[in-house]
Amino acid sequence: MTISSPSPRNAVILLSGGLDSSTVLAIAKAQGYDCYCLSLDYHQRHHAELVAADHVATALGARAHKTVQLDLSLFGGSALTDTRIAVPEQETTGIPVTYVPARNTIMLSLALAWAEVLQARDIFIGVNALDYSGYPDCRAEYVKAFQHMANLATKAAVEGQPITIHAPLIDMTKAEIIQAGHALGVDYGLTVSCYQADAQGAACGMCDSCRFRKIGFQQAGVADPTRYRAVPQGA
Amino acid sequence: MTISSPSPRNAVILLSGGLDSSTVLAIAKAQGYDCYCLSLDYHQRHHAELVAADHVATALGARAHKTVQLDLSLFGGSALTDTRIAVPEQETTGIPVTYVPARNTIMLSLALAWAEVLQARDIFIGVNALDYSGYPDCRAEYVKAFQHMANLATKAAVEGQPITIHAPLIDMTKAEIIQAGHALGVDYGLTVSCYQADAQGAACGMCDSCRFRKIGFQQAGVADPTRYRAVPQGA
Repeated sequence: MTISSPSPRNAVILLSGGLDSSTVLAIAKAQGYDCYCLSLDYHQRHHAELVAADHVATALGARAHKTVQLDLSLFGGSALTDTRIAVPEQETTGIPVTYVPARNTIMLSLALAWAEVLQARDIFIGVNALDYSGYPDCRAEYVKAFQHMANLATKAAVEGQPITIHAPLIDMTKAEIIQAGHALGVDYGLTVSCYQADAQGAACGMCDSCRFRKIGFQQAGVADPTRYRAVPQGA
Repeated sequence: MTISSPSPRNAVILLSGGLDSSTVLAIAKAQGYDCYCLSLDYHQRHHAELVAADHVATALGARAHKTVQLDLSLFGGSALTDTRIAVPEQETTGIPVTYVPARNTIMLSLALAWAEVLQARDIFIGVNALDYSGYPDCRAEYVKAFQHMANLATKAAVEGQPITIHAPLIDMTKAEIIQAGHALGVDYGLTVSCYQADAQGAACGMCDSCRFRKIGFQQAGVADPTRYRAVPQGA
């Protein structure tokens, strides 16, 4: 591969199909990037998010959308990949069982590979330190460390085209994220956040991800288009 | 996942089936680790190395051997995953076309995921800075940066079980590697290094990887058990 003409307008966007990453895609697009969206089919429970990712990528005018097949249930260790571990439906303390070992590191690594082939210098990820579920790989210091490593890892970086990892949501509340995406025209009705969404993308309304999302819409003052599969407890 | 009893004897070994990683497995085993070997089927040309990895893992008494399926030809950009790019059969300058974008970063990320589930604190990789082919992700500073990132990425590290990335070959010549493995009883006849090995693992004798290997055996004064599929040019 000869890197002769870098493409500073190309960016790789990690797109799960959820609320956060869909907002990130809209932000990258608004900043003028040609967006190449990458999703990971890691045999997650909530497979509906991958269908959502495809709809979101199309709706927001992505140049391309690829879904990598990588069966992380091979390792287990998370409620999202090991069906023997239940998804909690009440608030828990500490790092929750829905944490997937090294998931963001794996996804950023795949984005790095595609970025190098696309001659892109920019990778976007929707991590958020404030009201995420306490996952270690959602903190600014982690993102900074990944960027440092990436700039020692690749042929492109060594040849003078450093990579920037953008995490535009890192310090935003869920309400601020929703307001930002709403202003950019994101149709949140297309997105799926629920950890145990059914095949049609209908949400449980009770898992961490549903709770954060629901409160976010309330605080943002934006109508919540989420489809729930039953009236959630305590709603 | 509750991390209550760390397993300091468990280690994840990245095992390609080639000469270097097989030596690393023997070194980790000699240091007293229970070895969990991880290979990556990334749709590489030299698929025979994966069969070799399985034979090596068994011969050296690994506790387990898993092969992750991850089709990196989705991104292309390397002679090892894109059949339209030829494998060079003469010495080249700079970073060669056999470089696979972000491959070591992806493999270390997967090892990190498995290590966390196994409660292992140690990951071994056979990178080598001296007579490798000038790949940026084979340098000590890269390994150090990955380790730093890993220790911000995982639940285990955050909870006080830091990860160490071991690269015991980093400053060794190919001859020194062969001598070390030979002393530890590695059967190099089981290993496959050639970038374009045939289905039976027979080597071309001409690619970078074959040339480094052949000179290594000569300089080490160890009999070369490599099976070549034809008499190589200039041999």
